[in-house]
Amino acid sequence: MSKHARTDHPIHDLLAQRWSPYAFDGRSVTPDDARAIFEAARWAASSYNEQPWRFIVALRDDGEGFNQVLSCLVEANRQWAQHAGLLALTAIRTTFARSNKPNRVALHDLGLAAANLTLEATARGLHVHQMAGIEPDRAREVYSVPDGFEIATAIAVGYRTPAEQLQGELRDRETAPRTRRSLPEFVFGGQWDRPADFL
Amino acid sequence: MSKHARTDHPIHDLLAQRWSPYAFDGRSVTPDDARAIFEAARWAASSYNEQPWRFIVALRDDGEGFNQVLSCLVEANRQWAQHAGLLALTAIRTTFARSNKPNRVALHDLGLAAANLTLEATARGLHVHQMAGIEPDRAREVYSVPDGFEIATAIAVGYRTPAEQLQGELRDRETAPRTRRSLPEFVFGGQWDRPADFL
Repeated sequence: MSKHARTDHPIHDLLAQRWSPYAFDGRSVTPDDARAIFEAARWAASSYNEQPWRFIVALRDDGEGFNQVLSCLVEANRQWAQHAGLLALTAIRTTFARSNKPNRVALHDLGLAAANLTLEATARGLHVHQMAGIEPDRAREVYSVPDGFEIATAIAVGYRTPAEQLQGELRDRETAPRTRRSLPEFVFGGQWDRPADFL
Repeated sequence: MSKHARTDHPIHDLLAQRWSPYAFDGRSVTPDDARAIFEAARWAASSYNEQPWRFIVALRDDGEGFNQVLSCLVEANRQWAQHAGLLALTAIRTTFARSNKPNRVALHDLGLAAANLTLEATARGLHVHQMAGIEPDRAREVYSVPDGFEIATAIAVGYRTPAEQLQGELRDRETAPRTRRSLPEFVFGGQWDRPADFL
C-alpha cells in the first residue's frame, strides 16, 4: 500500500513520501539513525537562533525508559505508539535566553525542527507520527521539567508494518486516502480568501 | 562562500544546505516554483489534519502586491527583504474547524508546513529566510484578516547574491559561521538535562 501524496504540482520525493502511520513493527531505531534525526532537527532555523526546542527521547531498546515516555501519551496514542522504535517528548523554552522576553514563535520553531527530523527519518526508511495528544502535567512531573519550559508534543519514529496489524478505526484511518485542502483555499494574493494569481 | 552546515553526524544534503541569507538578488520567483513550494507546505502533517496554515503571497513581479506585503514587515527586515523574489505572510486558524475548540498546536503545525516549503525551495536552488519581525496589526488591517485567524510570521524566498551587496551588521551576519547547540544540550534521556545514552 503506497500513501505517496497525490500532488497537484511536483514536489521533492522526500516530501511526497512522508506520511504518519499508526502501524509500526516494534523494531528499535538504531543509535546511528537516532543521532542523525536529531542532528537534522539541530540545523533548523529559529528566531534569533534561539533553538527553543528540547527533546526527551527513548529508544525502544531502552525498555523502562521507553515505557516512561509512553506513559506520558494519552491512552488512544499509547495503543499504537507502543510499537514505535523511538519515542520523544518535545518541549520549548518559552522565553529568549538572551533577553528573557517571551518567544512568540517558540512553538513554530519547534515545528521547523520537527519537520527536519521527520525528513531525515524519511530519508532513512523510517516513518514518523507526531502527536498533540499527550499528558503534559504528567510529563512535567516525571521528567522534572523546569520553569520556563513547556512540554509541547510527542513524536513516534519507527518502521512501518502492514495495516492488518491494526484493528477497527485505526485500520480504517491507516488505509484511507490522504486528503488536503486545495492550494486556492489557503494561498491568497492581494486580499484574504482571494487565491494567489500564480495558482 | 558556502554555508553548508558543519554537522556532527551525517544528514540529508537538503537539510544541510538550508540556511537563511539576507542577500537576495531581486529576481522574482517563477509561478512554477511558487506553486511547488506551497504544494510542499500543503502535504505537511497537522493535528487532526486541520491544516491550520494560511499564506498571503506576492511574487516580486507583482509590483504593488509585493510592496504591500513588504510594508507589513518591521523596518529592519524591509531593508533586505525588498530584494527577495517572493514574500509571504503566514497565518493560523486558532481553533479546529470541526469543533471550534482551541488548536494548541496551530503555530507548531504552521512550522511543519513552513519547513516543507523551505526544503522544496532549497531543492529548487532557492533560499528562504523566515521572520518573526512583522507588524501583525498592520497586516490584519491591510488584508482584512477575519476573526479566528492570527498573522504569525513572514517568509522571504529568492536567489542568493554575494554578501558584498550588504552593508554593516547585515554583512557580518551573512558571513558569520553557522552555530548550534550541541546535541547533548537539547536531546535528553531519562530525565531533563541528562544527555540521551545514544549520543
